[in-house]
Amino acid sequence: MRQKLIAEFLGTALLLTIVVGSGIMAEQLAQGNAAIALLANAIATGCGLVVLIALFAPISGAHFNPLVSVVALANREIPAAQFWSFLILQTLGAVLGVWLAHLMFDLPIIQTSAKLRTGLGQWAGEFVATFGLIFLIRLGSAQKLAHLGALIALYVTAAYWFTSSTSFANPAVTIARCLTDTFAGIHPSGVVGFILAQCAGAICGAWLANDLAPSAKQDLT
Amino acid sequence: MRQKLIAEFLGTALLLTIVVGSGIMAEQLAQGNAAIALLANAIATGCGLVVLIALFAPISGAHFNPLVSVVALANREIPAAQFWSFLILQTLGAVLGVWLAHLMFDLPIIQTSAKLRTGLGQWAGEFVATFGLIFLIRLGSAQKLAHLGALIALYVTAAYWFTSSTSFANPAVTIARCLTDTFAGIHPSGVVGFILAQCAGAICGAWLANDLAPSAKQDLT
Amino acid sequence: MRQKLIAEFLGTALLLTIVVGSGIMAEQLAQGNAAIALLANAIATGCGLVVLIALFAPISGAHFNPLVSVVALANREIPAAQFWSFLILQTLGAVLGVWLAHLMFDLPIIQTSAKLRTGLGQWAGEFVATFGLIFLIRLGSAQKLAHLGALIALYVTAAYWFTSSTSFANPAVTIARCLTDTFAGIHPSGVVGFILAQCAGAICGAWLANDLAPSAKQDLT
Amino acid sequence: MRQKLIAEFLGTALLLTIVVGSGIMAEQLAQGNAAIALLANAIATGCGLVVLIALFAPISGAHFNPLVSVVALANREIPAAQFWSFLILQTLGAVLGVWLAHLMFDLPIIQTSAKLRTGLGQWAGEFVATFGLIFLIRLGSAQKLAHLGALIALYVTAAYWFTSSTSFANPAVTIARCLTDTFAGIHPSGVVGFILAQCAGAICGAWLANDLAPSAKQDLT
Repeated sequence: MRQKLIAEFLGTALLLTIVVGSGIMAEQLAQGNAAIALLANAIATGCGLVVLIALFAPISGAHFNPLVSVVALANREIPAAQFWSFLILQTLGAVLGVWLAHLMFDLPIIQTSAKLRTGLGQWAGEFVATFGLIFLIRLGSAQKLAHLGALIALYVTAAYWFTSSTSFANPAVTIARCLTDTFAGIHPSGVVGFILAQCAGAICGAWLANDLAPSAKQDLT
Repeated sequence: MRQKLIAEFLGTALLLTIVVGSGIMAEQLAQGNAAIALLANAIATGCGLVVLIALFAPISGAHFNPLVSVVALANREIPAAQFWSFLILQTLGAVLGVWLAHLMFDLPIIQTSAKLRTGLGQWAGEFVATFGLIFLIRLGSAQKLAHLGALIALYVTAAYWFTSSTSFANPAVTIARCLTDTFAGIHPSGVVGFILAQCAGAICGAWLANDLAPSAKQDLT
Repeated sequence: MRQKLIAEFLGTALLLTIVVGSGIMAEQLAQGNAAIALLANAIATGCGLVVLIALFAPISGAHFNPLVSVVALANREIPAAQFWSFLILQTLGAVLGVWLAHLMFDLPIIQTSAKLRTGLGQWAGEFVATFGLIFLIRLGSAQKLAHLGALIALYVTAAYWFTSSTSFANPAVTIARCLTDTFAGIHPSGVVGFILAQCAGAICGAWLANDLAPSAKQDLT
Repeated sequence: MRQKLIAEFLGTALLLTIVVGSGIMAEQLAQGNAAIALLANAIATGCGLVVLIALFAPISGAHFNPLVSVVALANREIPAAQFWSFLILQTLGAVLGVWLAHLMFDLPIIQTSAKLRTGLGQWAGEFVATFGLIFLIRLGSAQKLAHLGALIALYVTAAYWFTSSTSFANPAVTIARCLTDTFAGIHPSGVVGFILAQCAGAICGAWLANDLAPSAKQDLT
């Protein structure tokens, strides 16, 4: 159990270091061309995520995301105590990961984002992003797809581009990213709207995955 | 059968959301540099397509394209009723996917493209793009290639660049993309020419795949 | 045998269509930023090459390159008649592929490149590029590496960037690319120097692969 | 043993040729946009590294890095004599690889970098980069992860972006890169700080990998 908690903490921390760190580097170098910055940010995130999932999936399942954990809880794949431990450690890890990125780039450790992300379009973006993520994880697991970790990373790389919100799709990530006033930040006022949209998307994604994977029905509520 | 129809509808819808959504994001951020926009568009499409094929191939075959379905019909792999159902749901899904992209990016839902795409060069582009796609799918299936879904996605990523038309290669996609006045759009006047070129390419691709795959000859007309 | 010849002809033709076509598209869109153009060109070539090798390797071995064929001849893997047939069809296919790219992009079919590529640095680039390619193919084959086709494509993507000549590494490709006055072209005066450097690199690569793969020594001269 | 030494020498040399060569090409073409240059540099390095590891892992283990070798020594996977031979040949290979890049790009062979890389942020970057690299190699080996070579390459591609130092993570590479006054260079005054940070990161990474891989504990000090 101790190893599972370390895996969720460290994995989520490094995920945020990758997301925020590559965003800082990209914005510093891109001379204002946000498309180049987002392309670098998306490629770095995708490449890093493959590695994190490969390393930590055998230990903790590599959730790195409270919504992935809560769906696992609802399906009785993990006990309630483990869910709450994962939730806390994912959130703490995410915050620590952001701070580590600030440390590396000689920025003030404690920051708050000024980047407004709100409105129907952005919420629809988070709904779609999280719907797709949970749908992929649940249906892919039920089908025992080979290379599911790589598919998740490829999905996230694409979702940075095709959703209007650049695809947070993760409450712990959303909270942590309001603590950085850099490329990947989100103003605290936007956090609740994003998380609500993510929850709605996760519910729909889990429900549809259940519907399409008859052989896995017993695993889903 | 219900699950197959959902798979074709949802898969084609998400494919268009990816293509059109990433095109909108790319154009908004790229400061007029269309090469950066197309690079992001191609990478997002490729990454997303791998995932869609992996998820839906076990359910419906992941056609997402009336020309793929009609070749399957001609080879008696699917019955006529299924072909017509697929055709309708692919087209409806494609349109819905475009509208979902508009919703996410706070754009008017109903639009028509003003981007002219016509002429011999573009038609040759669509011929080559569709020839290659159908050739790959049919010969790759006959050879039982590993990772065929990934190969298809890599092909499409390359074809965005090496064909003059940026590779629509799909009548349902072509129709849906005339309903968006964004990066990926096509003026309605260009649709018929594109679809005719696609059909010609598909016929040649299926014919040549048949010629080169003797062990699979009984599967092809 | 007929199918092998079609495979070498069509595979080399499509390879050149990809290389030259994506170069034209990239140069047209990149607003003079050659780094973006080369990045798109390299990614399109890599993605397309994986597909071409996967499809044609089971039929002809997917040489697409006279130097690959001549090394196979020297190792008695193919008879002399097949080598000469491959050589001719690779060269014809390469030229036809360039012309197909011109057709798609509404350019004059018959062109000659004005881009000078010569000098010690460029020749060293071609030596290194071809050394690496042949070394990879021979040692990788001797070791029966999984995914060798993908490794070759990744190598070429990298070599576009790390060699000063952007890595032609193929006499048939070099000849064909002197027939296009676009991004990928080479002035005819540079062809002989490039091919000589390629031959030297291929000899060294094949020799070193032989030295490092004892279990495969009987396959190499 | 001779083949192992050739593998470490040649593999490290080609790694540096790829890193430095693609950096030179990228800087020459990118018109001052360092984000595009770093993106090309990262993609070329990642693509090339997959190939080098696939080819040389069966021969020497594909260390290419004194810190990887010293961890192997500490775990008694290689004898001390082999470690010292690897250390010397990796360093000589790295320097030769830089010089080969200069030769290809018609630059003076002997150079010293003027690019200052120092300070707490950069050292934290090197600590994180090397921690992650050694953690991945050790835990991934203990878990017998499939495609570990590809994971290492993806990690390095990501680390170019998410670490403030662009991830040297290798003492031999650091020494060699102070001998090039191009995109990838480092002023000699920064070498010691970088190497100390790398050593600290490697120790922590190896220690944590050991902690999380119980089944592999006997392999780690």
